[in-house]
Parts: sequence; C-alpha cells; structure tokens
Amino acid sequence: MGMFDKPILVFQTDFTYKEGAVSAMYGVVKTVDRELEIFDGTHELPQYDVWSASYRLMQCLPFWPKGTIYVSVVDPGVGTARRACVAKTANGYYVVTPDNGALTHVKREFGILEVREIDETVNRLPSTRGVSVFHGRDLFGYTAARLASGIISYEEVGPLYPVGEIVSLPILEPTVEPGHARGIFEIDDPNFGNLWTNIPTDAFRKAGFRYGDTVRVRIFHGDTPVFEEDVLYHQSFGFAAKGAPMLYTNELMKVGMAVTEGSMTERYGLSYGPDWIVDLCFA
Amino acid sequence: MGMFDKPILVFQTDFTYKEGAVSAMYGVVKTVDRELEIFDGTHELPQYDVWSASYRLMQCLPFWPKGTIYVSVVDPGVGTARRACVAKTANGYYVVTPDNGALTHVKREFGILEVREIDETVNRLPSTRGVSVFHGRDLFGYTAARLASGIISYEEVGPLYPVGEIVSLPILEPTVEPGHARGIFEIDDPNFGNLWTNIPTDAFRKAGFRYGDTVRVRIFHGDTPVFEEDVLYHQSFGFAAKGAPMLYTNELMKVGMAVTEGSMTERYGLSYGPDWIVDLCFA
Amino acid sequence: MGMFDKPILVFQTDFTYKEGAVSAMYGVVKTVDRELEIFDGTHELPQYDVWSASYRLMQCLPFWPKGTIYVSVVDPGVGTARRACVAKTANGYYVVTPDNGALTHVKREFGILEVREIDETVNRLPSTRGVSVFHGRDLFGYTAARLASGIISYEEVGPLYPVGEIVSLPILEPTVEPGHARGIFEIDDPNFGNLWTNIPTDAFRKAGFRYGDTVRVRIFHGDTPVFEEDVLYHQSFGFAAKGAPMLYTNELMKVGMAVTEGSMTERYGLSYGPDWIVDLCFA
Repeated sequence: MGMFDKPILVFQTDFTYKEGAVSAMYGVVKTVDRELEIFDGTHELPQYDVWSASYRLMQCLPFWPKGTIYVSVVDPGVGTARRACVAKTANGYYVVTPDNGALTHVKREFGILEVREIDETVNRLPSTRGVSVFHGRDLFGYTAARLASGIISYEEVGPLYPVGEIVSLPILEPTVEPGHARGIFEIDDPNFGNLWTNIPTDAFRKAGFRYGDTVRVRIFHGDTPVFEEDVLYHQSFGFAAKGAPMLYTNELMKVGMAVTEGSMTERYGLSYGPDWIVDLCFA
Repeated sequence: MGMFDKPILVFQTDFTYKEGAVSAMYGVVKTVDRELEIFDGTHELPQYDVWSASYRLMQCLPFWPKGTIYVSVVDPGVGTARRACVAKTANGYYVVTPDNGALTHVKREFGILEVREIDETVNRLPSTRGVSVFHGRDLFGYTAARLASGIISYEEVGPLYPVGEIVSLPILEPTVEPGHARGIFEIDDPNFGNLWTNIPTDAFRKAGFRYGDTVRVRIFHGDTPVFEEDVLYHQSFGFAAKGAPMLYTNELMKVGMAVTEGSMTERYGLSYGPDWIVDLCFA
Repeated sequence: MGMFDKPILVFQTDFTYKEGAVSAMYGVVKTVDRELEIFDGTHELPQYDVWSASYRLMQCLPFWPKGTIYVSVVDPGVGTARRACVAKTANGYYVVTPDNGALTHVKREFGILEVREIDETVNRLPSTRGVSVFHGRDLFGYTAARLASGIISYEEVGPLYPVGEIVSLPILEPTVEPGHARGIFEIDDPNFGNLWTNIPTDAFRKAGFRYGDTVRVRIFHGDTPVFEEDVLYHQSFGFAAKGAPMLYTNELMKVGMAVTEGSMTERYGLSYGPDWIVDLCFA
C-alpha cells in the first residue's frame, strides 16, 4: 500500500499550539506509520465546547476526500466513564472522538452507519499506561493512526454499540413559512464575528425573500428582545455599507448575519446556542 | 506525474484557525488531487488588510521553490465585481488572489509577466454554487489545486487582461543621500513589535552609516513628530541594551527598528503605512 | 533515497504565524529538498523564553520517530557570539538550536552523545549574507534541511565541542519521602492553565499517596506562602468538582495541578520556575 492508499488524518482539538500537546500527538501518529498524512482541522476550538466540535465536524467533513479519518478531541470528561469511539458516517468518513455530544450534527446531517467503542486494552499507546489525561495522544491519535495504516481494521477498533446510544445534544429545528422564518444562531464565526443561523437559504428564498430585500430582524436571548432592526439581505458583505448589519447566505447555504468589515457579535453583544432566537419577516 | 512534479500550494489568509474555513478549503484541494502538498503561509493576516497580504507575498515568495503556487485570500470585496485572478510572476511563481491591491509589492519587486481572470463558469467548485462569501474554498483554492495538479493549464484559468490593469496600492519610495535617509515604516513584525522601513540596507550603508554608529531617529505620523532619539545602529538585537530602541538590518536587507526584548510598536505607540515617516541622520 | 528514508523536520519557535517568518523558513527547507516533511512543533513558545523551549523539547521529542530532527529557535541572542549547534541525543534524535540553555532538559533526561557547532561559512543560506537577525531561516532551517536530505553528513555540520560546554539552566531536583513531597512548578499548560510539578508520579505513589486521597498543598513564591488548601488527588479532571483545584497525573507522569474546567494559573495568580515551590503532605 502506498501513502495515497491510506486515508488522511485531520485533527480538531481545543489544545491550541501553545505547548507540546499537538506535537506529541502527531509524533505518535508518524511513529505508528511514517507514511500517514496529517492535517490541522483546528486546534483552537473553544475550550470544553463540545457543541462547537460537533458543528465544525459537520462544516468540514464533506469537503475532504471520502475515507478521511477526522479526529476530534474536545474532552472535558477525559479519563472518566464516557465512551471513546470511532463512528462510520453514511457519507463515507470515520470520526474518532469521545462520545460526549460531538457527533450530534454529523449524525443529524449525514447519518451514522455504525459506531464502535475503542477497546483500550489493545488500542492504546503502551508506553503511556498510567496517564489518564491525554487521550488525544494515547488513545484517539494512536487508534486513528493504526486504523489509517491498516494495522487494525475498523472491526478491530472495539465492540459495536447501538447508534441510538450515541450522546446527542438538543438541536432546535427552524421554522420557515411564506414571509416569515424563525431559528437560532447555531454558531458564530469567531474570527469575523458573524453569526450563522440554522435557517436554510433555500427554504428562506422559497418563503419569498430575495437579495436586495430589506428584512426586519428580531433577536431574542431567551425571552428578552436584544435586537430589532431592518437590514439588507444580499449575497455577500460588499453589498452593504461598511459597518452596517446585514443578512447573507453563508458558506453552508444557511442565512448568516454580519456587520460589513465589523463584528456582529461584539457590536451587539450576541452569541450562539439554543437560547438565541432569530425571527425574520418583511420590513 | 509524481507528487513532486506538482507545485507546492502555500496559503495566506485572514481566516485564522478558529473555525472550519481552513479545513474545508484544504479538504477541497485534497479532493481535487490527493497528491498535492499544502503549506500554511499564515492564516493570521490582519483582517481586511490587503496591504499586509501584499507585503507578505513579497517577503515569502522568493524563498519557496520555483513554480510554487501562492494563494492569498484577504478579500473584503468577496462576491462583488473585483476580479479573481492568477498572476504569473517574473521570478517564477504563480499568485492566486483577488485583484484588490494584493499584487502591489510583488509587481513592483519582481514583476508580473501576465495575469488571467479566473473564469468562474468553469473554475469553481460545482457543489457550492449559490455561495458568494467563501472564494477561498470555492474559487481560489479549487482553481489553484486544479492548476497544480495539471487538470487545467495556466491558459485555462481564464482570459488574459493587461498587467497595467492590476490594482496597485500607492507605495512611497525612500530617499537616501550621504548622511541622510528618509522613508516610511512599511510594515511591522506583529509578533516582536519591530518596525521595518522601506530603506534598503545597501543604500543606507553607501550613505555612510556603519554598525556601531549612533543615529538620530525622527518619526512623524503625518506632520506630527512622535519620536526623536539617538539610537544605536547594529547588526542584531543582542548588541543593544535590553529595553533600548535600536536600528538594525532586517531579514529583507532593509533598515528595521526594534526594542531589544521589547516591543517598539507598543512602547512608542507606532504603526506602519504611508503616513508613518522615518527620518535618519547622524547624531 | 525515497522521501521516507529522510528524517522528519519538526520546528518550534517563538515566531508565531502572524507574519512571514515561518513561511520563508519552510520555503528554504523545501528549496533545499522538495521531499522533506515538515511539522509545526509550535510557533507560539513564550517570547525569549529559553526555559520553555528546553522543556518542550523534552516533552515532545520521544514521541517522534527515531532520527527526527527537531529545530528549536528561541534566540534572543541571535547574531551575537552564542553558539549555533546540532546535538545528537542518546535516545536517537538531532536537535538544531542556539546553544543558550535550550538543551538543558534534553541533556538531563535523555543525555547528549555529542554536539557540533554549525560552521556558518558553509552551512548558511548564501543569498542571505548580511542578515544577522533570522538564523531560523538562514542557518538553523537551512542546516537542518541539508542534514535531513543527506547533502551534508552530521560530521559536516561543523566542529565537535565538549558536551560539558553546553549551556545549561539551573534545575532544582524534587525530594520525595514517605508522606511528603517537595518540588517546583516546572512549567505550565498555557492553554488550560494547569501547572506541572517536577515530582514524578511513581515516586509520589511510592511515598504513599493514592488516587482519592486528600492532600494538603502549600505553594510558596520564594519565601512567601501563596496557597494552602486541601485538595483531591485523582487520575483525571472529571473526578473533581467543576471549578475545584485538584492534583492529578500529567501526561509526562509527573504530579500536575489543575482547576477542573478552569485555570489554576489565572485563578490563583501562579506561575512556574525555580522560585515556585510546591509542598505536598497528607491533609
């Protein structure tokens, strides 16, 4: 088997690159099999934020070649009884992760065919027995590398368990009807300060909204109204005045909200999650 | 063609690694051609700062192997009428970028032989039609990957347009005469807080300045004097006292200014651009 | 020689990815030999912090394949008389670094078989003569690449010098006796805010401490007591209450201290180094 017959490994964690964790983890992978290709998904997920891990898996997975093994380690329960698993998705990927909610979006969007619990008695870096705090290096990275290299088969990861037992976080579904849409801010873009709703662009447009329309946007944090303005809906940032809030179509074909060359989250003190409600109608 | 017959792809953006954008973009490249090699130039360019994008291209390009394809995405006008292009430089590289000023320094320092506008009707990731906000993934990365893999030739990128039409930002030229040099702070080192002038070391030394000399430094922000001190000119930081400002020869053979083991920009409230004038004469 | 016959290059620096330094440095490596594999160890070491560079080398090195060449550039004395060197470690690696203390932990933990001073007259990127501030690109990266590619042998790096002349930083040894252990906070985890002592878990457990025990922790900054509390000792974070300080076994099998889902360093204003004393006994 040549190097390109082996799947790519992509890693996403909340480790940052500030100390040696990522280096040690990648060293383990290359020690298992020198030929494996490794990519950074990101190592800057918000700390302990399993929801973000789940969302980013959904966002990125389908753009990688089929067969890619995505390793996700946001693991506040490391060393406790939560399962460590490898899921096989219906769209052709493997996800290696603690089963703590990180599979929520992938399961809902793409489906999961089967899931196996990593058998720590065989799939653990032997030299690190006694360490319970770094499964990224000792368990997840090591198992992903052995799977990618063909040292173990998927069946040898460990025992199957029911897909229905996968830990899922609650997700609110959006509602869209003619002239009206309601959803949540499902995630942010922490770099540019944009917010992404869970309202699909296609449904939004079927509901009658067109680029160039002015839309009345109401945002609630729980029951408290925190924003009400009429804003432009258009295809990209450059169509709105610099500094003005706007609605647009984000990279996942959902309705996004931004301030052109500014930060929506900072300027209006907004965030994301099931209690950040967005209500859209014609102005 | 083996993997090493295909050019390297280097990416620089203002996306950061905080969310999934870089991962999705690189996934597209590897899906186009598994054999392509990808490097991070940087994903931490200052947001919307086309000037920095332009400077970093000049700074890094010549150190990579000839033929390398450098993808630069600082793109506040994404989705608007600005051109998306691939430039062929006179020193043997390709630059894939929005034509928004990012080619300024490369054109001036190395020259551009020809430039083509990316034909979006053929060189765009088909699955993402409808998205106008992420040309890094859907247009620039995808086109660069197809060019690197040989799926399209340079001619198939799209139609030529005149090199004279490339968008250029204004650059002030330095003046150097015996005993006197004047220029601007052209860029900073945002990590160490150094500032880099556009005054070439060779000219500065021909003007009579020698390592060990004390130089009178005057800095103006527009017309306002903001700094006047006599400082040491030497070859590296360790020759000045810790905490003292100094002049040195930077890594691009220009005159730089630093505080030894400190930050010039923070300590004196300085920045870079055409309105930050530096005037140097003998103390 | 195929690409996998050549050692991997891993880089750790305090350059960050904010500007073009890493890109230029890696470009030089790939220009020397297109086949070389490069990994980021980290580029976010604390600025000028040779102690951290030294610690991270010890932390990461043994997880990489034997033969790996680790390049470390934290170099406040760049361009001055400090030696530039390549050390051959007793556990089978090469470290390329300024000899400024960065070899302290590797020498103590693994041993150094021999060390050579880089001969700058032959092992320096020719196009950069005149630049004294960027040995990462011009000297360390370039030499490491030529060594990895087989262009030069280890002997051709430059002349041997006595291992005893390697610059070492002072390290305090921990003391452990039944029911009592004393050491220092040797380093932090700057991401999660944990602190890592130099007290080995094995010795600590031989001294009678068991998971589930409550341990009296006294911390001194010099002679000043700064913390005294009874805390849980357990194998991982999830065993303590969220927000509670705890002792645990870190990834290098030393005693660590953390706040579950919080930051020990920020909450208690603690840091690391030889003057941060930790004293542990039964509560």
